[in-house]
Amino acid sequence: MNEHPAFVEWTETVLKKTLERFQERQKEFKTDSGLHAERLALPEELDEKYLSKIGFPGQYPFTRGVQPTMYRGRLWTMRQYAGFSSAEESNKRYRYLLEQGTTGLSVAFDLPTQIGYDSDHKISHGEVGRVGAAINTFADMEALFNGIPLDKVSTSMTINSSAAILLAMYVVVAEKQGIKPAQLSGTVQNDILKEYIARGTYIFPPQPSIRLMTDIIEWCSREMPKFNTVSVSGYHIREAGSTAVQEIAFTFANACAYAQAAISAGLDVDVFAPRMTFFFNASSDFLEEIAKFRAARRLWAKLMKKRFKAKDTASLKLRFHTQTAGYTLTAQQADNNIARVTLQALAAVFGGTQSLHTNSRDEALTLPAEGSVRTALRTQQIIAYESGVCNTVDPLAGSYYIENLTDRLEHEILALIGRIDAAGGMVAAIESGFVQRQIEDSSYAYQRQIENGERIIVGLNKFQETEETPPSVFKINKFTEENQIMKLSKIRAKRDNQKVMKSLSRLDEAARGKENVMPYVIEAVRCYTTLGEICDVLRNVFGIYEGKKGF
Amino acid sequence: MNEHPAFVEWTETVLKKTLERFQERQKEFKTDSGLHAERLALPEELDEKYLSKIGFPGQYPFTRGVQPTMYRGRLWTMRQYAGFSSAEESNKRYRYLLEQGTTGLSVAFDLPTQIGYDSDHKISHGEVGRVGAAINTFADMEALFNGIPLDKVSTSMTINSSAAILLAMYVVVAEKQGIKPAQLSGTVQNDILKEYIARGTYIFPPQPSIRLMTDIIEWCSREMPKFNTVSVSGYHIREAGSTAVQEIAFTFANACAYAQAAISAGLDVDVFAPRMTFFFNASSDFLEEIAKFRAARRLWAKLMKKRFKAKDTASLKLRFHTQTAGYTLTAQQADNNIARVTLQALAAVFGGTQSLHTNSRDEALTLPAEGSVRTALRTQQIIAYESGVCNTVDPLAGSYYIENLTDRLEHEILALIGRIDAAGGMVAAIESGFVQRQIEDSSYAYQRQIENGERIIVGLNKFQETEETPPSVFKINKFTEENQIMKLSKIRAKRDNQKVMKSLSRLDEAARGKENVMPYVIEAVRCYTTLGEICDVLRNVFGIYEGKKGF
Repeated sequence: MNEHPAFVEWTETVLKKTLERFQERQKEFKTDSGLHAERLALPEELDEKYLSKIGFPGQYPFTRGVQPTMYRGRLWTMRQYAGFSSAEESNKRYRYLLEQGTTGLSVAFDLPTQIGYDSDHKISHGEVGRVGAAINTFADMEALFNGIPLDKVSTSMTINSSAAILLAMYVVVAEKQGIKPAQLSGTVQNDILKEYIARGTYIFPPQPSIRLMTDIIEWCSREMPKFNTVSVSGYHIREAGSTAVQEIAFTFANACAYAQAAISAGLDVDVFAPRMTFFFNASSDFLEEIAKFRAARRLWAKLMKKRFKAKDTASLKLRFHTQTAGYTLTAQQADNNIARVTLQALAAVFGGTQSLHTNSRDEALTLPAEGSVRTALRTQQIIAYESGVCNTVDPLAGSYYIENLTDRLEHEILALIGRIDAAGGMVAAIESGFVQRQIEDSSYAYQRQIENGERIIVGLNKFQETEETPPSVFKINKFTEENQIMKLSKIRAKRDNQKVMKSLSRLDEAARGKENVMPYVIEAVRCYTTLGEICDVLRNVFGIYEGKKGF
Repeated sequence: MNEHPAFVEWTETVLKKTLERFQERQKEFKTDSGLHAERLALPEELDEKYLSKIGFPGQYPFTRGVQPTMYRGRLWTMRQYAGFSSAEESNKRYRYLLEQGTTGLSVAFDLPTQIGYDSDHKISHGEVGRVGAAINTFADMEALFNGIPLDKVSTSMTINSSAAILLAMYVVVAEKQGIKPAQLSGTVQNDILKEYIARGTYIFPPQPSIRLMTDIIEWCSREMPKFNTVSVSGYHIREAGSTAVQEIAFTFANACAYAQAAISAGLDVDVFAPRMTFFFNASSDFLEEIAKFRAARRLWAKLMKKRFKAKDTASLKLRFHTQTAGYTLTAQQADNNIARVTLQALAAVFGGTQSLHTNSRDEALTLPAEGSVRTALRTQQIIAYESGVCNTVDPLAGSYYIENLTDRLEHEILALIGRIDAAGGMVAAIESGFVQRQIEDSSYAYQRQIENGERIIVGLNKFQETEETPPSVFKINKFTEENQIMKLSKIRAKRDNQKVMKSLSRLDEAARGKENVMPYVIEAVRCYTTLGEICDVLRNVFGIYEGKKGF
């Protein structure tokens, strides 16, 4: 087996190169009984079928993972999505999480920030700081990362239609810390199409939205080469009620639309594709979820290679963040959610995720309390350090059931992508309502199964408790909005408003033309122009999207 | 594939017979995406190697499980070990558990009961009702099962040196409920050798202890054919610090000693072997634990077939109860234990367990509170009903890593059994201290790994909290001992003491001779003779075991 030329080649090239760059975490990996845990278990015979369908980790088609040593080399990034109330309050939570051992940050912004309104806009009333941090100017962003050196941490930002502005603020905060954009690592979600399908925080119509996202991709490819410029997200599509097949198919269809847009904007696929990342859901069907991640990895490599003619290996690698499935958690008997999250997190790890958010037990009820967030993080650490599953690469490879399911899922996903292609691509499929109907149908079927008892949800439609003491609900500071508005009005009074007006008029010009808007957004951010002001200019140029039937 | 003669034969005989006896739980099993979940995933080619090493479920060598449809047919028995304070208090907990959806009972007795002393004996002081229910006479046993029809429930009793007496009480309680011994199902632990190795609740020296256990096996084979007469337990061996390999090897060596004793007592292997069951530990090394269960099943089938010449298929099937590993739980950050237990329970299910106890989060601190017990049970229900892992038989079969580890573990276990054989069998290996030293060495190595940080235990030697609010500790009623002594003295005053004396003298005679003691124990129990009184007679005949160096 070890002498098969394909294995020898992988060992001598892919594996060797990686081990030269960085050693594995331990010299030796052993089971609890002291048996040798092999790096990569293989079938006794490496036939053509194995080589073409499963292959070796870090090598096309990447079924077994994107790195040759996977978690023996480096664990996934433990990244807990967090943010609420003011930048200052959120900063406290990030420092707490870093102290507890998270290895990456993930920022939640409030709804007004997501749809481009300042805290003092009337539309923002009651929403300021509710589902994430309120960010109006880069002063807030500075407070958000106070005491956190941005060259030492990887930050993920869940922001889409206003992504250019938040990214610009991040760059300017780094600048003040003396850190260059090129040193920054992290991810900006910047995945606008799924907003029309599932998440809803769009501002502009699809076409100018795609132009903005392409501007980010283009600018970052030059200035922030370590930053992931898009995180194509199936997570919210799944949360909206889709199946695993739909989650991946729609996400890939979105990703193909972005890749096409970037290519049309003149970018080389091997420049932007290595900075594209993905964000998936780890739901309850343990075996299917594992197979889903493996099928997605194989299919994406094929799509990039065949459809987009990518040549760089880095372009073919599906790297993804995973979050456990919020929709599966129950308000009833909240501690049961710890068990659910543990199973889902393990599925993500068996699926080879690059980073992971584990939901807190109380997320079905409220913003998670510190103690709940800690248990969620500890769940990842227990899997990482106690369960032994990181000792070997892709441990479940070869399982008859999982390999077969991986094949079938790949087939189903590809078939659904084919239907979207036939419908004229993802923008057209969204505009016609095809995608939304597909998701609605699945969501309806799922709800019906729960209602008629065909699907058992423990504590919800079976094994209920008659009396329950509700857990204490975590509440944000009730003065958040008031404080935020006060802070903002002080900034507006102190800043150089001439400069602000000038920066906005330059941005207006760029947006009307074909120039990349990023440098102008950064200029505006530097002189304390607010998020709302910048978005108003863009709204004026691009128009706003009201949503329509099928949208 | 489907036409391979071996598969056709299995389908037409083993599978068909089972499906005729009972249908699967659902007409169709599907993944969350609606894909067909196949009953039994198989490799594309069924070669000799597959057939001899892995084979089909419900067929020799049983690597894939003892039933052909496994959890598609029937879920494992959810059986939570419980008992504390008085029989009445324990009864309340059992009723609570049954209400919550446990499907079997598992009785914990207090230490005095386990070592044959009544609650009013001075040795019992401070221990009455502490780690289990205090049982003195069959009146207590009656209170323990008050309102629980014994023909409807399967009961497991963790009792060893005094097993004959508690089993007799169970029979008499059933008798009063109008239920015949032949209708009773459940398990009596009755595994005395591991008491000398690991658990410590022995009374008599090994030889008469084995005679008592053989009497139980012999009597039950005639009178209680549905009852499992021994549960050979690796659980406590593992808890004492052994490795997975040692756990199985020592358990099997004990089981071989019992089988040999039964055969020497004139029993046919195919009469007692089908009623032998096992009890294993599901610990943290997820993949090794799964492989351990599969290797154990294959090896036991071989041992029974080759060493003991068993002919009945039922004799070859390793049926086992599993409990998650108490020793892995931490008093620190107790909620983390929910995640640990979830992983361990899933390993047990992937390993094909027949019944399962999931530890409660607070078991490292105290007797579990009701809420904690509920979460532990819910964890099993979530795995059973939400995770989809029960939709297909032995889902991880074929995994290169797991199959390879299964082979290697089987080899290691067999090698260790070989060393015990060479040492003259298990009784000799215990008497020489070989077994205890092996366990001590492993335990020491494990502790050292924790102390030097080589092994990370989350919350214990990494990711600690500086301040912790200790969870509320569940306390038993402080009047338990007093009440129990009062109850006992009333019984002693009311019963027919003539009858008691007579029954004890008959028992004395039987114990001195070769007759089976069970009928005499039952007779004594019927007239309210106490556990302590019965044990005193046996202590007088058999002597007591003081423990000695190496023991």
